[in-house]
Amino acid sequence: MSHPLRLGIAGLGTVGIGTVKIIQAHAALLTARSGREIVISAVSARSRGKDRGADLSVYGWEDDPAALAAREDVDVFVELMGGAEGTALDATRAAIAAGKDVVTANKAMLAHHGNELAAMAEEKGLVIRFEAAVAGGIPVVKALTEGLAGNEIRRVMGVMNGTCNYILTRMENAGLPYGDVFEEARGLGYLEADPSLDVDGIDAGHKLSLLAAIAFGKKVSFDDVELEGIGRISIDDIRRAGDMGYRIKLLGVAQETGRGLEQRMTPCLVPADSPLGQLQGGTNMVVLEGDSVGQIVLRGAGAGAGPTASAVMADVIEIARGSRISTFGQPASLLATPVPARANSPAPYYLRMELSDKPGALAKVATVLGDEGVSIDRMRQYGHEDTSAPVLIVTHKTTRDAIDHALKRLPATGVVSAEPVAIRIETV
Amino acid sequence: MSHPLRLGIAGLGTVGIGTVKIIQAHAALLTARSGREIVISAVSARSRGKDRGADLSVYGWEDDPAALAAREDVDVFVELMGGAEGTALDATRAAIAAGKDVVTANKAMLAHHGNELAAMAEEKGLVIRFEAAVAGGIPVVKALTEGLAGNEIRRVMGVMNGTCNYILTRMENAGLPYGDVFEEARGLGYLEADPSLDVDGIDAGHKLSLLAAIAFGKKVSFDDVELEGIGRISIDDIRRAGDMGYRIKLLGVAQETGRGLEQRMTPCLVPADSPLGQLQGGTNMVVLEGDSVGQIVLRGAGAGAGPTASAVMADVIEIARGSRISTFGQPASLLATPVPARANSPAPYYLRMELSDKPGALAKVATVLGDEGVSIDRMRQYGHEDTSAPVLIVTHKTTRDAIDHALKRLPATGVVSAEPVAIRIETV
Repeated sequence: MSHPLRLGIAGLGTVGIGTVKIIQAHAALLTARSGREIVISAVSARSRGKDRGADLSVYGWEDDPAALAAREDVDVFVELMGGAEGTALDATRAAIAAGKDVVTANKAMLAHHGNELAAMAEEKGLVIRFEAAVAGGIPVVKALTEGLAGNEIRRVMGVMNGTCNYILTRMENAGLPYGDVFEEARGLGYLEADPSLDVDGIDAGHKLSLLAAIAFGKKVSFDDVELEGIGRISIDDIRRAGDMGYRIKLLGVAQETGRGLEQRMTPCLVPADSPLGQLQGGTNMVVLEGDSVGQIVLRGAGAGAGPTASAVMADVIEIARGSRISTFGQPASLLATPVPARANSPAPYYLRMELSDKPGALAKVATVLGDEGVSIDRMRQYGHEDTSAPVLIVTHKTTRDAIDHALKRLPATGVVSAEPVAIRIETV
Repeated sequence: MSHPLRLGIAGLGTVGIGTVKIIQAHAALLTARSGREIVISAVSARSRGKDRGADLSVYGWEDDPAALAAREDVDVFVELMGGAEGTALDATRAAIAAGKDVVTANKAMLAHHGNELAAMAEEKGLVIRFEAAVAGGIPVVKALTEGLAGNEIRRVMGVMNGTCNYILTRMENAGLPYGDVFEEARGLGYLEADPSLDVDGIDAGHKLSLLAAIAFGKKVSFDDVELEGIGRISIDDIRRAGDMGYRIKLLGVAQETGRGLEQRMTPCLVPADSPLGQLQGGTNMVVLEGDSVGQIVLRGAGAGAGPTASAVMADVIEIARGSRISTFGQPASLLATPVPARANSPAPYYLRMELSDKPGALAKVATVLGDEGVSIDRMRQYGHEDTSAPVLIVTHKTTRDAIDHALKRLPATGVVSAEPVAIRIETV
């Protein structure tokens, strides 16, 4: 049996302590599966004294995570502090400089600095693994990097922020507006300290950009991800979409188009009876489509101490077993810079508008849509409330540009009494 | 870059040719991802002349797969012939004897000889990978062996025979009896040459036994898998189960119980609105439950040239990348012999019976159930047809033994006019 694999764990929040607990509870199992012992040499966190519910007294302690990363008795630096910049980034750079492999759950850091870190690591023959950074316990990084490695990937989709899915599900089930459920989620501790990371799609966008890099062999380009949060989703749209057989999800999609790499994390309609449509609450789901394998759906807990620590341990065991996979599935030097493409790939759209109670109102709207090449698949008009009537339209496949042009022209018709809503319907 | 990884592919059916086509179509992609070229040195099949829709003229040819396995210019023997015994087994043994790694899609061979082959291979420092043997394109072997390696696995479940799921789904949707749909499936070429492999659960049982070995660190023990096919499932039960909110699936379950390792591949009821319940047609689904990760659900095509070849290539790339994971996730020498446990773990049961039109009939049945400790959760009695009335019962959690005892006593009540049906309800 080889010598033990020695970890330095930086960050002792729920995930860090979850990881410590797995190593303490399953020592024999981990040794059998890894072919060598997995031990913790030392740990680091902001405050040493705090009771974290696990016995850390047998491990070394470093106040400075960068010092932890450089310790002689550490083979793998396990970065569980979080944050795109600052301490986590400094310590990760220090780890690589000191010749350590890195396991991290830090999607923000990799979304912003993954290219640089991967190049640094690979130049020194080191690996960076980040299963825990995407979709918590779901082994999606492995599925994409390894399980589907024989495929040209067609599309990657996913609901990868449990908090947003919780909010949307709760709005639907309880009939509550966004603001109320947002406050509820905050009270329950479901939101990041900066809630914008969740509800504006940033956190999920980070994850998508990492999967896209693996899937399409491109450099990580988070800045190219089109982001739109869930703040503008009304309970009305959730209900009306439901009437038409859809649910609204904050859905990430990455795909190569003829125009370049499309990456977006935006509210979309998906069929209510599809696996994505049926996803309730805080669960995550990732859909991978390859030219040989067809469609693979992965579902599981996207957050939480246990699931995330499970993913951290998968990476640690991978390294213990001697696997040396490039950070993004192929050498960083081979990753091309993606050409970003605006999310204009054809799709059906859901339109909701309020039509004033005037003769020929619907005809005027239909004419504008027709002029812009937007053809109507299904339409539903509701009874008049006061002086206006809600109208729902599901279009045939069209482009975002055509929809935008049509929406711009609608006010001039004089029959639309509120700003129309347009949401892409993703074919899943 | 390392020297090319050279394959010898034995078996040129749909999966073999699918594998050849991936290697021909994606050479550059595979090289980038593997860090080395993947090439085919030679192939083998029954008939050399046959047109298989792929250009094989550049590869060497061997009539004898064992000779292919032993060729100097082969690093990995890719066994895609199938069959538990005979040629496939002989050639695989020859490959190991000649110092070759093995990639196989052969669940039957591994279910019967996996322990021996793994021990042989590991003694020589070789690996056997078999992602394609279980659930087609779904990377479930990797998910379990690697993605969930930090978990103590609690339970493995799965719908792993697409043909059975197709038959059950089709019976429900078309309202057709088993026999008709069986013939339809045979006509469509969905059934194995020996249909018993499909409809009696043998093929799915093979797969379950392989996952159980990985999950619980035990030797493969296919002989201990309780098998029951779908032949006795009536359209009546499908409908009645639907009335109670369930669907019937041929469901594999493996779990450690206090009494030993329970492995079964039997028809079960699952909630109609659960991921397993919603699985339609030939798709496969595997559910993995670990102490840290909770529940992970994987869904995808369980068969077909593309998906299965995708899984074959995942293993080939894994070997090309230098990964050396033990066949069942830990060294064969460490795998304990499982203590088999009869599938008696507590569960609710679905009971359907025909009660004759006599006063107190239901009371008599309820008394027998009560005497055996079987308590009723929900009951539904339908109107009388002729002289008997269908009665459906969903019990509280009970054991198979209690149900069996009660069923044995029911005829003596004189009020049950046909043999009662009892099907386990699996909590998912």
